[in-house]
Amino acid sequence: MVSKKIAVLPGDGIGPEVCRQAVKVLQAVAERFGHRFEMRNHLMGACAIDATGDPLPEATLTACREADAVLLGAIGDPKYDNDPSAKVRPEQGLLRLRKSLGLYANIRPVTAYDVLLNHSPLKRERIQGTDMVIFRELTGGIYFGEKGRTADGTGAYDHCTYSRDEILRIAHLAFKAAAGRRQKLTLVDKANVLETSRLWREVVREMAAQYPEVEVDYLFVDNAAMQIILNPTQFDVILTENMFGDIISDEASVIAGSMGLLPSASVGAEVALFEPIHGSYPQAKGKGIANPIAAILSAAMLLEHLELNTEAAMVREAVDEALHNGILTQELSPNAPYSTEEVGSYIAFWI
Amino acid sequence: MVSKKIAVLPGDGIGPEVCRQAVKVLQAVAERFGHRFEMRNHLMGACAIDATGDPLPEATLTACREADAVLLGAIGDPKYDNDPSAKVRPEQGLLRLRKSLGLYANIRPVTAYDVLLNHSPLKRERIQGTDMVIFRELTGGIYFGEKGRTADGTGAYDHCTYSRDEILRIAHLAFKAAAGRRQKLTLVDKANVLETSRLWREVVREMAAQYPEVEVDYLFVDNAAMQIILNPTQFDVILTENMFGDIISDEASVIAGSMGLLPSASVGAEVALFEPIHGSYPQAKGKGIANPIAAILSAAMLLEHLELNTEAAMVREAVDEALHNGILTQELSPNAPYSTEEVGSYIAFWI
Ligand SMILES: CC(C)[C@H](C(=O)O)[C@@H](O)C(=O)O
Ligand SMILES: CC(C)[C@H](C(=O)O)[C@@H](O)C(=O)O
Repeated sequence: MVSKKIAVLPGDGIGPEVCRQAVKVLQAVAERFGHRFEMRNHLMGACAIDATGDPLPEATLTACREADAVLLGAIGDPKYDNDPSAKVRPEQGLLRLRKSLGLYANIRPVTAYDVLLNHSPLKRERIQGTDMVIFRELTGGIYFGEKGRTADGTGAYDHCTYSRDEILRIAHLAFKAAAGRRQKLTLVDKANVLETSRLWREVVREMAAQYPEVEVDYLFVDNAAMQIILNPTQFDVILTENMFGDIISDEASVIAGSMGLLPSASVGAEVALFEPIHGSYPQAKGKGIANPIAAILSAAMLLEHLELNTEAAMVREAVDEALHNGILTQELSPNAPYSTEEVGSYIAFWI
Repeated sequence: MVSKKIAVLPGDGIGPEVCRQAVKVLQAVAERFGHRFEMRNHLMGACAIDATGDPLPEATLTACREADAVLLGAIGDPKYDNDPSAKVRPEQGLLRLRKSLGLYANIRPVTAYDVLLNHSPLKRERIQGTDMVIFRELTGGIYFGEKGRTADGTGAYDHCTYSRDEILRIAHLAFKAAAGRRQKLTLVDKANVLETSRLWREVVREMAAQYPEVEVDYLFVDNAAMQIILNPTQFDVILTENMFGDIISDEASVIAGSMGLLPSASVGAEVALFEPIHGSYPQAKGKGIANPIAAILSAAMLLEHLELNTEAAMVREAVDEALHNGILTQELSPNAPYSTEEVGSYIAFWI
């Protein structure tokens, strides 16, 4: 019996709806195992701007720091995207949260579920057996470098920087993960053009000696963008920098047949955060059509992070039950869809 | 009857083999129409390093400047990729060539050929009818910004910069292309994170008023990386900056079923360069298995650039004949492959 604090940041759009289902599943786990999960909602994103003017209010940040883990829904609102001059944006909250909590590694597993192979835009024989994990660096690179306009206002710049230490800490995580999986690590970079990529390659090459059981591969990002579609089963662990990771992990998500299935973990030295990889999908808000599975599997990753592995396995089994029995939201079952709520309750019921 | 100078840079790996076929086809065009194409080979890439120590010898650059158009094979050699400390690299030649000739716009059409739909890793119904053109900015951004190591040697940096003028000139090309096609332009950027992307969005938004017939769409690059696979037929003209263009144009190439089919043009204020999008594919060198069609279609784009449209159309028809009659290299016809030479000769024969 354990007692844990989980800070919940439902966010914007479909974020609150899918979070509610993940929370329901966590509650079912707590009841079943006699745990105590203290789960409180906090503001972040567009909803936080609307309420406080700040996408990441101090109270939210404090709550995250004091928590054992953070569960996030999704953030973002089109009213900010379409206004390039907006000074305050929901994304700033997310980026500041990552930076403030030191969440340097974003971990995204991509699996092709056999029962859903037909939903993928890719041919079945290409993707069957896909099982990769992408380790994306999350607090460095061009996301967090200096940026601005030139003095005369006619130009703009974004600086990309990386230090050896920033590369080392996430690379160690990725090497360890690979060692416990199929022992293959692929570094994705653009070392034929970028100096930062050459540093990544140097550091990873040096580290490889410490993990002799792991086979290391190097792929230019343009080639990787092709290989992920052409032959996804070749990958085990992919390691890459922030911007490339943003692009190729979203690209890789198409393999699974729906973004609504894919969870992620963002880990740092202290706290860790768990969120679906999908965005706030504002067009679907309030319609009960959002798939809660990505959020629920994020909760499973959260349980694993708390070393509640039996509990996590039970959540995964319950998700498999839903998939096998066709308890699916609209994008996966257009003719006989279940609602967000129904899918969540079905999974919680199985716990 | 015209007389033109074409500088030919066969380059490395399979570059010379596929270039030879494109040259053969251009010769057939010249004979058939009574034109004179003066085509001379020049060194660039790894072969130029081996011969002169410089990936882009001065003589090559001069020849390109004096030419009406440049035809390039491919450059690159793994011996440089695997040595992050190499001071001289084949890619530097290509980047310097682009910069010196001012080739600011890389134009990559991506078409799904009906006869080859089965070869795509994507399901037929997703890709049938795909017909997009990617306009990638080619002489700015993080490719050409300041780069280096920090003073203490523990860090590295790459600066991304863009000016309004750099954006304007390629955006005009893209808008004009869209106006002459299906009137849709999609800007791919990361305006929720990057200042340079916000500048792109501002400039394009301002310009849109000058092209009222063109519908403009804005897509974050991570989303674009998904949409290109999920629903490629939604795109007409895609406009994007250098690094994003590198990634998504290679990604989009999988739609066609083989990289060996896709040509590109890189245009500037004066001279223009034409090259297949595939790389030097060193493993295939000398085996006669490389597909010359991408190089031959690059020659067709070259002819269009010289305003020899009837001639270009004839080359395209000849390529279609080869595709329809199964005159295909190994990657598209593993059981009854034709050689590089045979495919080239077949196409030249049809002229
Ligand atoms: C919302 C945005 C800033 C964010 C990112 O680019 O990191 C998102 O795309 C993600 O991948 O979590
Ligand atoms: C070889 C490399 C420098 C080049 C690039 O990144 O521009 C290539 O990938 C391309 O797309 O032409």
